[in-house]
Amino acid sequence: MSTADEAGAPRGGDPDVPPRVLNLTTAFGQVAGLWRPHVVADLNGQQIKLARIRGAFDWHAHPGEDEAFLVVRGRMRLEFDNGVRELGEGDLCVVPRGTRHRPVADDECHIVLFEPAGTVNTGDAPGSRTVRELPRL
Amino acid sequence: MSTADEAGAPRGGDPDVPPRVLNLTTAFGQVAGLWRPHVVADLNGQQIKLARIRGAFDWHAHPGEDEAFLVVRGRMRLEFDNGVRELGEGDLCVVPRGTRHRPVADDECHIVLFEPAGTVNTGDAPGSRTVRELPRL
Repeated sequence: MSTADEAGAPRGGDPDVPPRVLNLTTAFGQVAGLWRPHVVADLNGQQIKLARIRGAFDWHAHPGEDEAFLVVRGRMRLEFDNGVRELGEGDLCVVPRGTRHRPVADDECHIVLFEPAGTVNTGDAPGSRTVRELPRL
Repeated sequence: MSTADEAGAPRGGDPDVPPRVLNLTTAFGQVAGLWRPHVVADLNGQQIKLARIRGAFDWHAHPGEDEAFLVVRGRMRLEFDNGVRELGEGDLCVVPRGTRHRPVADDECHIVLFEPAGTVNTGDAPGSRTVRELPRL
Protein backbone atom coordinates (compact mmCIF):
# COMPACT_ATOMS: atom_id res chain seq x y z
CA MET A 1 0.00 0.00 0.00
CA SER A 2 1.42 3.33 -0.99
CA THR A 3 1.87 6.05 1.57
CA ALA A 4 3.42 8.50 -0.87
CA ASP A 5 2.14 10.92 -3.44
CA GLU A 6 3.71 11.15 -6.87
CA ALA A 7 6.35 13.60 -5.72
CA GLY A 8 7.77 11.07 -3.31
CA ALA A 9 6.71 12.97 -0.23
CA PRO A 10 4.58 11.38 2.45
CA ARG A 11 0.88 12.05 2.16
CA GLY A 12 -0.70 14.19 4.77
CA GLY A 13 -3.18 11.36 5.00
CA ASP A 14 -6.29 11.57 7.12
CA PRO A 15 -6.05 14.87 9.00
CA ASP A 16 -7.69 13.14 11.97
CA VAL A 17 -5.02 10.46 12.22
CA PRO A 18 -1.37 11.04 13.20
CA PRO A 19 1.39 9.59 10.98
CA ARG A 20 1.73 5.83 11.22
CA VAL A 21 4.38 4.02 13.24
CA LEU A 22 6.05 1.01 11.66
CA ASN A 23 8.03 -1.52 13.67
CA LEU A 24 11.02 -2.69 11.68
CA THR A 25 11.16 -6.15 13.25
CA THR A 26 7.52 -6.76 12.42
CA ALA A 27 7.96 -5.29 8.95
CA PHE A 28 10.89 -7.58 8.12
CA GLY A 29 8.50 -10.48 8.72
CA GLN A 30 6.52 -9.19 5.76
CA VAL A 31 9.46 -8.78 3.40
CA ALA A 32 8.98 -11.44 0.74
CA GLY A 33 12.05 -12.82 -0.98
CA LEU A 34 15.76 -12.13 -0.85
CA TRP A 35 17.46 -9.13 -2.49
CA ARG A 36 14.03 -7.60 -3.03
CA PRO A 37 13.84 -4.22 -1.30
CA HIS A 38 10.45 -3.23 0.12
CA VAL A 39 9.66 0.47 0.53
CA VAL A 40 8.50 1.46 4.02
CA ALA A 41 8.72 5.25 3.79
CA ASP A 42 8.92 8.11 1.31
CA LEU A 43 10.39 11.41 2.37
CA ASN A 44 12.03 14.33 0.60
CA GLY A 45 12.34 12.38 -2.64
CA GLN A 46 14.16 9.61 -0.80
CA GLN A 47 12.98 6.19 0.30
CA ILE A 48 13.60 3.96 3.27
CA LYS A 49 13.67 0.33 2.19
CA LEU A 50 13.98 -3.00 3.97
CA ALA A 51 15.76 -5.96 2.42
CA ARG A 52 16.53 -9.51 3.47
CA ILE A 53 19.76 -10.65 1.90
CA ARG A 54 21.77 -13.87 1.77
CA GLY A 55 24.58 -14.90 -0.54
CA ALA A 56 26.51 -12.67 -2.90
CA PHE A 57 24.79 -9.95 -4.92
CA ASP A 58 26.02 -8.60 -8.25
CA TRP A 59 28.83 -6.06 -8.48
CA HIS A 60 27.39 -2.65 -9.37
CA ALA A 61 27.55 1.09 -8.80
CA HIS A 62 24.86 3.77 -8.60
CA PRO A 63 26.23 6.57 -10.78
CA GLY A 64 24.00 9.28 -9.31
CA GLU A 65 22.94 8.02 -5.90
CA ASP A 66 24.63 7.67 -2.54
CA GLU A 67 23.32 4.63 -0.67
CA ALA A 68 23.19 4.04 3.08
CA PHE A 69 23.23 0.53 4.51
CA LEU A 70 22.17 -0.10 8.12
CA VAL A 71 22.28 -3.66 9.45
CA VAL A 72 19.53 -4.45 11.92
CA ARG A 73 19.97 -8.22 12.17
CA GLY A 74 22.83 -10.53 11.24
CA ARG A 75 26.04 -9.71 9.49
CA MET A 76 27.06 -8.73 5.97
CA ARG A 77 30.04 -7.38 4.16
CA LEU A 78 30.43 -4.74 1.51
CA GLU A 79 33.12 -5.57 -1.00
CA PHE A 80 34.77 -2.68 -2.83
CA ASP A 81 37.48 -2.48 -5.45
CA ASN A 82 39.84 -1.27 -2.73
CA GLY A 83 38.85 -3.50 0.18
CA VAL A 84 36.09 -5.03 2.26
CA ARG A 85 34.00 -3.68 5.12
CA GLU A 86 32.33 -6.01 7.60
CA LEU A 87 29.02 -4.86 9.05
CA GLY A 88 27.23 -6.26 12.09
CA GLU A 89 24.08 -5.19 13.90
CA GLY A 90 23.83 -1.45 14.27
CA ASP A 91 26.54 -0.76 11.72
CA LEU A 92 25.99 2.00 9.16
CA CYS A 93 27.91 2.50 5.92
CA VAL A 94 27.28 5.04 3.17
CA VAL A 95 28.43 3.99 -0.29
CA PRO A 96 29.15 7.15 -2.30
CA ARG A 97 27.69 7.47 -5.77
CA GLY A 98 29.82 5.90 -8.45
CA THR A 99 31.50 3.47 -6.06
CA ARG A 100 31.50 -0.12 -7.26
CA HIS A 101 30.40 -2.48 -4.52
CA ARG A 102 29.05 -5.96 -3.89
CA PRO A 103 26.92 -6.79 -0.83
CA VAL A 104 27.48 -10.31 0.53
CA ALA A 105 25.91 -12.12 3.49
CA ASP A 106 26.95 -15.63 4.48
CA ASP A 107 23.73 -16.04 6.49
CA GLU A 108 20.47 -14.17 6.20
CA CYS A 109 20.86 -10.53 7.11
CA HIS A 110 18.26 -7.76 7.48
CA ILE A 111 19.22 -4.33 6.25
CA VAL A 112 17.67 -0.88 5.99
CA LEU A 113 18.52 1.15 2.90
CA PHE A 114 18.19 4.91 2.64
CA GLU A 115 18.53 6.25 -0.88
CA PRO A 116 16.79 8.40 -3.51
CA ALA A 117 13.40 7.20 -4.73
CA GLY A 118 13.89 5.33 -7.95
CA THR A 119 17.29 3.91 -7.07
CA VAL A 120 17.49 0.51 -8.77
CA ASN A 121 19.02 -2.29 -6.72
CA THR A 122 21.47 -3.40 -9.38
CA GLY A 123 22.50 0.14 -10.36
CA ASP A 124 24.54 0.23 -13.56
CA ALA A 125 24.59 -3.57 -13.90
CA PRO A 126 21.00 -4.68 -14.56
CA GLY A 127 20.40 -8.41 -14.58
CA SER A 128 18.14 -11.17 -13.39
CA ARG A 129 17.97 -9.72 -9.89
CA THR A 130 16.99 -6.23 -10.95
CA VAL A 131 13.75 -5.15 -9.26
CA ARG A 132 12.09 -2.03 -10.64
CA GLU A 133 8.66 -2.26 -9.07
CA LEU A 134 9.19 -2.40 -5.36
CA PRO A 135 6.61 -3.78 -2.94
CA ARG A 136 5.45 -1.42 -0.22
CA LEU A 137 4.78 -2.13 3.40
CA MET B 1 35.13 15.35 11.61
CA SER B 2 33.33 16.08 8.39
CA THR B 3 32.86 13.37 5.83
CA ALA B 4 30.91 15.54 3.41
CA ASP B 5 31.77 18.01 0.72
CA GLU B 6 29.91 21.29 0.38
CA ALA B 7 27.20 19.75 -1.75
CA GLY B 8 26.20 17.45 1.07
CA ALA B 9 27.33 14.31 -0.70
CA PRO B 10 29.81 11.94 0.87
CA ARG B 11 33.39 12.48 -0.13
CA GLY B 12 35.00 9.85 -2.20
CA GLY B 13 37.73 10.08 0.40
CA ASP B 14 40.97 8.21 0.08
CA PRO B 15 40.67 6.06 -3.05
CA ASP B 16 42.69 3.39 -1.28
CA VAL B 17 40.28 3.12 1.65
CA PRO B 18 36.71 1.79 1.46
CA PRO B 19 33.88 3.89 2.99
CA ARG B 20 33.86 3.91 6.78
CA VAL B 21 31.56 1.83 8.95
CA LEU B 22 30.02 3.50 11.98
CA ASN B 23 28.45 1.50 14.79
CA LEU B 24 25.39 3.34 16.09
CA THR B 25 25.68 2.03 19.65
CA THR B 26 29.28 3.21 19.87
CA ALA B 27 28.42 6.50 18.22
CA PHE B 28 25.62 7.26 20.69
CA GLY B 29 28.28 7.09 23.40
CA GLN B 30 29.88 10.09 21.73
CA VAL B 31 26.71 12.17 21.43
CA ALA B 32 27.18 15.05 23.84
CA GLY B 33 24.10 16.62 25.37
CA LEU B 34 20.36 16.12 25.02
CA TRP B 35 18.28 17.39 22.08
CA ARG B 36 21.52 18.08 20.20
CA PRO B 37 21.57 16.12 16.96
CA HIS B 38 24.98 14.92 15.77
CA VAL B 39 25.50 14.28 12.06
CA VAL B 40 26.88 10.85 11.21
CA ALA B 41 26.32 10.75 7.45
CA ASP B 42 25.66 13.01 4.44
CA LEU B 43 24.04 11.56 1.36
CA ASN B 44 22.00 12.97 -1.51
CA GLY B 45 21.57 16.30 0.23
CA GLN B 46 20.16 14.53 3.28
CA GLN B 47 21.69 13.81 6.64
CA ILE B 48 21.53 10.97 9.13
CA LYS B 49 21.68 12.32 12.66
CA LEU B 50 21.80 10.78 16.12
CA ALA B 51 20.14 12.40 19.11
CA ARG B 52 19.75 11.57 22.78
CA ILE B 53 16.51 12.95 24.10
CA ARG B 54 14.78 13.17 27.47
CA GLY B 55 11.86 15.30 28.57
CA ALA B 56 9.55 17.32 26.35
CA PHE B 57 10.86 19.25 23.37
CA ASP B 58 9.23 22.36 21.88
CA TRP B 59 6.20 22.17 19.60
CA HIS B 60 7.26 22.91 16.04
CA ALA B 61 6.86 22.03 12.37
CA HIS B 62 9.32 21.85 9.49
CA PRO B 63 7.56 23.67 6.67
CA GLY B 64 9.67 22.20 3.87
CA GLU B 65 11.12 18.99 5.28
CA ASP B 66 9.77 15.55 6.02
CA GLU B 67 11.48 14.05 9.05
CA ALA B 68 11.98 10.37 9.90
CA PHE B 69 12.37 9.20 13.49
CA LEU B 70 13.79 5.76 14.26
CA VAL B 71 14.09 4.70 17.89
CA VAL B 72 17.13 2.55 18.61
CA ARG B 73 17.02 2.54 22.41
CA GLY B 74 14.29 3.41 24.90
CA ARG B 75 10.87 4.81 24.24
CA MET B 76 9.46 8.14 23.13
CA ARG B 77 6.23 9.61 21.91
CA LEU B 78 5.40 12.01 19.15
CA GLU B 79 2.57 14.34 20.03
CA PHE B 80 0.53 15.81 17.18
CA ASP B 81 -2.42 18.16 17.04
CA ASN B 82 -4.60 15.17 16.23
CA GLY B 83 -3.19 12.55 18.56
CA VAL B 84 -0.14 10.82 19.99
CA ARG B 85 2.08 8.04 18.66
CA GLU B 86 4.16 5.89 21.00
CA LEU B 87 7.49 4.63 19.66
CA GLY B 88 9.64 1.85 21.10
CA GLU B 89 12.83 0.24 19.88
CA GLY B 90 12.80 -0.38 16.15
CA ASP B 91 9.83 1.88 15.55
CA LEU B 92 9.93 4.25 12.58
CA CYS B 93 7.69 7.28 12.04
CA VAL B 94 7.86 9.87 9.26
CA VAL B 95 6.49 13.29 10.17
CA PRO B 96 5.34 14.97 6.95
CA ARG B 97 6.46 18.52 6.26
CA GLY B 98 4.25 21.13 7.83
CA THR B 99 2.98 18.80 10.55
CA ARG B 100 3.18 20.27 14.04
CA HIS B 101 4.71 17.82 16.47
CA ARG B 102 6.39 17.57 19.86
CA PRO B 103 8.83 14.77 20.70
CA VAL B 104 8.71 13.64 24.34
CA ALA B 105 10.67 10.97 26.21
CA ASP B 106 10.02 10.18 29.86
CA ASP B 107 13.42 8.47 30.12
CA GLU B 108 16.48 8.88 27.95
CA CYS B 109 15.87 7.67 24.43
CA HIS B 110 18.25 7.30 21.49
CA ILE B 111 16.91 8.20 18.07
CA VAL B 112 18.13 8.29 14.49
CA LEU B 113 16.83 11.12 12.30
CA PHE B 114 16.78 11.14 8.48
CA GLU B 115 16.10 14.55 7.01
CA PRO B 116 17.40 17.11 4.54
CA ALA B 117 20.76 18.68 5.34
CA GLY B 118 20.15 21.99 7.01
CA THR B 119 16.97 20.95 8.78
CA VAL B 120 16.90 22.89 12.05
CA ASN B 121 15.80 20.94 15.10
CA THR B 122 13.21 23.47 16.24
CA GLY B 123 11.81 24.08 12.74
CA ASP B 124 9.49 27.07 12.63
CA ALA B 125 9.74 27.70 16.38
CA PRO B 126 13.32 28.74 17.12
CA GLY B 127 14.24 29.10 20.77
CA SER B 128 16.82 28.31 23.40
CA ARG B 129 17.17 24.75 22.18
CA THR B 130 17.76 25.61 18.55
CA VAL B 131 21.03 24.12 17.30
CA ARG B 132 22.30 25.39 13.95
CA GLU B 133 25.87 24.12 13.99
CA LEU B 134 25.67 20.40 14.45
CA PRO B 135 28.58 18.33 15.76
CA ARG B 136 29.77 15.53 13.50
CA LEU B 137 30.81 12.05 14.40
